[in-house]
Amino acid sequence: MNIIELAEKAKEASYKLAGISLETRNKALKNIYEALIENKDKILEANKKDIELSKEVLSEPMLKRLKVDKKVFNYMLKRFQDTILLPDPLGIITLHQINPQGMEVYRKSVPLGVIAMIYEARPNVSTDAVSVCIKSGNALILRGGKEAFNTNICLVDIMKKAALNAGMPEGSLDIVGDTNHETVTEMLKLNDYIDVIIPRGGKGLIKKISDESKIPVIKHYDGICHQYVSTCDYGMAVDVILNSKLQKVEVCNALETLLIDEKIVKDFGPIICRALEEKGVKLLGCDRMREIYPMEKATEEDYYTEYLSYILSVKVVDGVRGAIDHINKYGSHHTDGIITSDQEQIEMFLNEVDSASVLVNASTRLSGGGEYGMGSVVGISTDKLHARGPVGPMELTSYKWIAIGKGNIRK
Amino acid sequence: MNIIELAEKAKEASYKLAGISLETRNKALKNIYEALIENKDKILEANKKDIELSKEVLSEPMLKRLKVDKKVFNYMLKRFQDTILLPDPLGIITLHQINPQGMEVYRKSVPLGVIAMIYEARPNVSTDAVSVCIKSGNALILRGGKEAFNTNICLVDIMKKAALNAGMPEGSLDIVGDTNHETVTEMLKLNDYIDVIIPRGGKGLIKKISDESKIPVIKHYDGICHQYVSTCDYGMAVDVILNSKLQKVEVCNALETLLIDEKIVKDFGPIICRALEEKGVKLLGCDRMREIYPMEKATEEDYYTEYLSYILSVKVVDGVRGAIDHINKYGSHHTDGIITSDQEQIEMFLNEVDSASVLVNASTRLSGGGEYGMGSVVGISTDKLHARGPVGPMELTSYKWIAIGKGNIRK
Repeated sequence: MNIIELAEKAKEASYKLAGISLETRNKALKNIYEALIENKDKILEANKKDIELSKEVLSEPMLKRLKVDKKVFNYMLKRFQDTILLPDPLGIITLHQINPQGMEVYRKSVPLGVIAMIYEARPNVSTDAVSVCIKSGNALILRGGKEAFNTNICLVDIMKKAALNAGMPEGSLDIVGDTNHETVTEMLKLNDYIDVIIPRGGKGLIKKISDESKIPVIKHYDGICHQYVSTCDYGMAVDVILNSKLQKVEVCNALETLLIDEKIVKDFGPIICRALEEKGVKLLGCDRMREIYPMEKATEEDYYTEYLSYILSVKVVDGVRGAIDHINKYGSHHTDGIITSDQEQIEMFLNEVDSASVLVNASTRLSGGGEYGMGSVVGISTDKLHARGPVGPMELTSYKWIAIGKGNIRK
Repeated sequence: MNIIELAEKAKEASYKLAGISLETRNKALKNIYEALIENKDKILEANKKDIELSKEVLSEPMLKRLKVDKKVFNYMLKRFQDTILLPDPLGIITLHQINPQGMEVYRKSVPLGVIAMIYEARPNVSTDAVSVCIKSGNALILRGGKEAFNTNICLVDIMKKAALNAGMPEGSLDIVGDTNHETVTEMLKLNDYIDVIIPRGGKGLIKKISDESKIPVIKHYDGICHQYVSTCDYGMAVDVILNSKLQKVEVCNALETLLIDEKIVKDFGPIICRALEEKGVKLLGCDRMREIYPMEKATEEDYYTEYLSYILSVKVVDGVRGAIDHINKYGSHHTDGIITSDQEQIEMFLNEVDSASVLVNASTRLSGGGEYGMGSVVGISTDKLHARGPVGPMELTSYKWIAIGKGNIRK
């Protein structure tokens, strides 16, 4: 099947999916869960083949992302269990009224239609996307990276059969059968069949797809996350900042810039800087910071940088106003926190920081689908339109206006 | 002020707007309402100037759209009154939970940020957009057509002063001071300042903007609206179909294609065709239809056409399945109706027709913001992502995830 046929089939399936019951969708999730367990050896075998083919060309961290070990396999399984337990995202009535003429009008959540997922090495994106799309009644076309080709084909083959057996319509779940770039280029033009594209991977991939696509894209850009500290319990602040930066340095909700209020910087600055350096973090600071604690100078460019490593920018700001202005200018609208005991500052920060997640006295690492109780997610959107923050089944729905008349006409 | 300065100011204002109370926003709407009444003569004078400048070059219908007469002026005023009465679209908590670690997490509606509205001749788009954006706490940049330039400048000048007097932040409402195409081209690149573009006008304008823009666009494409008729009360069906087609032929929710079930076409076909022809509607039909009632042949192209005039395509379909397939293929996902007494068919139609509004036994003219009780709207979206159908204050919001911790960290 070429990509156009695949997309046509998905579109056809999507119309049927809009009427598929929660029972059938949950049964599909359960069937897949069981089929994955049953076919564990086959999956690990396919993954071994991918690792074998790539081990000379890929870096160690890339190979790690590619690998399906016991831990990753169990993670994949757990997502299906978690997603079964979520409430139905479809058929939710968000408005209901009788219009002036006596016509009943309501607004109901419905699937988006056909989702195309374009991603790189991690095979668990395949299973995450399937769990979220089945729950939300969307047809799904996967297109994974070439490194994980055997693993993905094997996974999708198993999941497809299990879903069809549960009564999901033919065409509701499939994978592109090649990893040519031309196929992706062609996909991006299929706006008659595909309703949304979700790219997962590096900034370059996402930018390329958004620029080229005629189809709406839900973007998952980088996380240049901040913590702003002012008057507070310094012990708590140190814990929260260290955790924000160090619990996992290579992820999108790790801390990249620390903003310290000028009122506390003389006292708190040296405490936090020492604590960070002890953990192996390299600090880059503004001039005011460097007067208080020795470190290399942070350039303008540094404040725009997602390090994803043991480097942190540190800047002194004038009050909550200065912090908000810095975050809105240099940040990526992903996750930003305030550490303070001042309620007025908290309110201003929560109102004016223009980010998907805003946290008070908590680690930036606590933003995300898992922590927000969303079961499986396909990523964390940095868009403001439609889905913002973690994208789970609910975020992959649209809505319909339904009006029930008795021969009503417009006067 | 050039367009970049204008957009920068709007962005700054947008951060402040996120914290502006409903009281202040409603006061701004009230002030504008009063200021418009006070300055009525000035507005009509400015509009007269526009009409004078255009009367040699514009067609009669275009001049009619441009004109602010007493009726249009009262319509403008009424929108402000209606919008004051709407509930606050901001600060709505759509989720609230305590996460496993005891951290309080909630999701709250917030303004989208900066909206740019690019539109053609109708001056009431200026006032509609202002009412919707003030209510929803969005900063607004207007860019109207050159024909209405004097009217728009005059209106915005009055509205801006009235809004600032109520306490709205400087920069929250403005109009581009020229009507050069280069300025629009530059606007479309300002994705650092503008969050959403809403174009209103012909298909060409909307397509050009979506293709060129780096900023998300809420699109208001055409309405190729259908009614599908099967077993029902024929008298009711005739009333609903005539009203769908004729109540106002030149608008997006007027009927363009009538689908008649093969089971009733022999009986009902001649009745409805005669009724439509009596009202001056020219019919174009499929071969099966033409065997029953004489009319010109409808081409494939006709089914894709939004006539906006006294022309109607008529097609015989096989059951509700045939109707759904036709609508999903040829329609524009705007507004489609079913006329029947069969509950099973109704359910299938409502589930599977992929349109913003789906109606049962009601005129297509009954879809829209007014009929759905939404007060003022800026248009009817044919997108599936974010806003679908009428776009009012609620649809111009995004949301934020807020987490309140007590020093919580990720284990």
